[in-house]
Amino acid sequence: MTEHEHGHMYDREFDASLVAARRNRAWFAERGIFAVDLVGGPGSGKTTLIERTIRELRGRLAVSVLAAAPAKGLDGDRVRAAGAPAVAVAIGSQCHLDAEMVTRGLAELQPASGSAVLIENVGNLVCPARIDLGERTKAVVLSVTEGDDKPLKYPDIFAAAAVLVINKIDLLPHVDFNVDRAVAHARAANPGIQPIWLSARSGKGLGCWCDWLRREASSARDRAA
Amino acid sequence: MTEHEHGHMYDREFDASLVAARRNRAWFAERGIFAVDLVGGPGSGKTTLIERTIRELRGRLAVSVLAAAPAKGLDGDRVRAAGAPAVAVAIGSQCHLDAEMVTRGLAELQPASGSAVLIENVGNLVCPARIDLGERTKAVVLSVTEGDDKPLKYPDIFAAAAVLVINKIDLLPHVDFNVDRAVAHARAANPGIQPIWLSARSGKGLGCWCDWLRREASSARDRAA
Repeated sequence: MTEHEHGHMYDREFDASLVAARRNRAWFAERGIFAVDLVGGPGSGKTTLIERTIRELRGRLAVSVLAAAPAKGLDGDRVRAAGAPAVAVAIGSQCHLDAEMVTRGLAELQPASGSAVLIENVGNLVCPARIDLGERTKAVVLSVTEGDDKPLKYPDIFAAAAVLVINKIDLLPHVDFNVDRAVAHARAANPGIQPIWLSARSGKGLGCWCDWLRREASSARDRAA
Repeated sequence: MTEHEHGHMYDREFDASLVAARRNRAWFAERGIFAVDLVGGPGSGKTTLIERTIRELRGRLAVSVLAAAPAKGLDGDRVRAAGAPAVAVAIGSQCHLDAEMVTRGLAELQPASGSAVLIENVGNLVCPARIDLGERTKAVVLSVTEGDDKPLKYPDIFAAAAVLVINKIDLLPHVDFNVDRAVAHARAANPGIQPIWLSARSGKGLGCWCDWLRREASSARDRAA
């Protein structure tokens, strides 16, 4: 399926969105900024992961956050309380961010050159798969309470992501979730996907995630130099 | 917001969808069928709830299932294995069911008069809120692992539902989820919403849910008589 074929957008909107995605990507590239689009179902733990990441990377990597806000305020406040600049982007009745929303958010956020921008998408495993925001890469967050069959059910989002964050591993003893099976299912959709398992609540495994972010941010700076 | 204002559908599609929703509602009403649209995030436990409900109601209420299938097969198979007629409706690249998909699914499913039809929507807390399928009522499934703030973040879906199913209560000792707070947040969006808490996995609390279904199915039969 090409992006042209999906039923959601008018062609005009699609074109504008493509232009905006290209513009955002160039904007990030010029400034050596690493931008990652965090996707995942509602309650998969995207906001908690972001809060924890900010605390973990303090003094080591400048991070700022652009968060989709289905309803007003909430997550922007949580992120700012964690100590990073954050802008909440109102999405109205949309079920995903689009590139123009990101452009508007960036104008307000003004992330520093060489930093990392975490884009928190709407909790949705369908539409964000096919929307280019101009990010460098997508990371999909799947919590162990959601079931290891989710990559079979929503393959597109796993195909679109470079990284699979398996979250809430502190709950593994209490749920029927097989990490190997989840990874195998995700790899059926995307053989190159890189799994990182962690608990954003306990902090276990967070090092791998933060190391990945720092490596990617470093590469973005190198490309801009 | 009225349905006309949302950005997703062409007006023509919207009109067709409205006509189809009315047609489905009349179809259910004539046959005394109770149809419920089960909405909730991916991994909230909709499929497991349906499987368990079928087993619980065997011999007491005829149930059949119409399930959205983002990818092929899976959930229809799980439901049929639980012992009820099921049809999987291909949704292509859509992030929600629409009324015309339901019409097509019903033609294949052919639910019995006086029965209950459980419609399993796509895992998504945004778009299904504003899509009328012709169902009698919506029930939103929220699992305790998703966080008690979800009704604040996605108020529309809680406003659209008559029943709030709080699922996975067997995991309450292991997560930071306050049932009272979740209910209070949901009631801020919808003062009349009826909470039912249960564990579809352990079966705890399932009686209330099944009683509600049986009561509603009985009312639908009475209205048709």
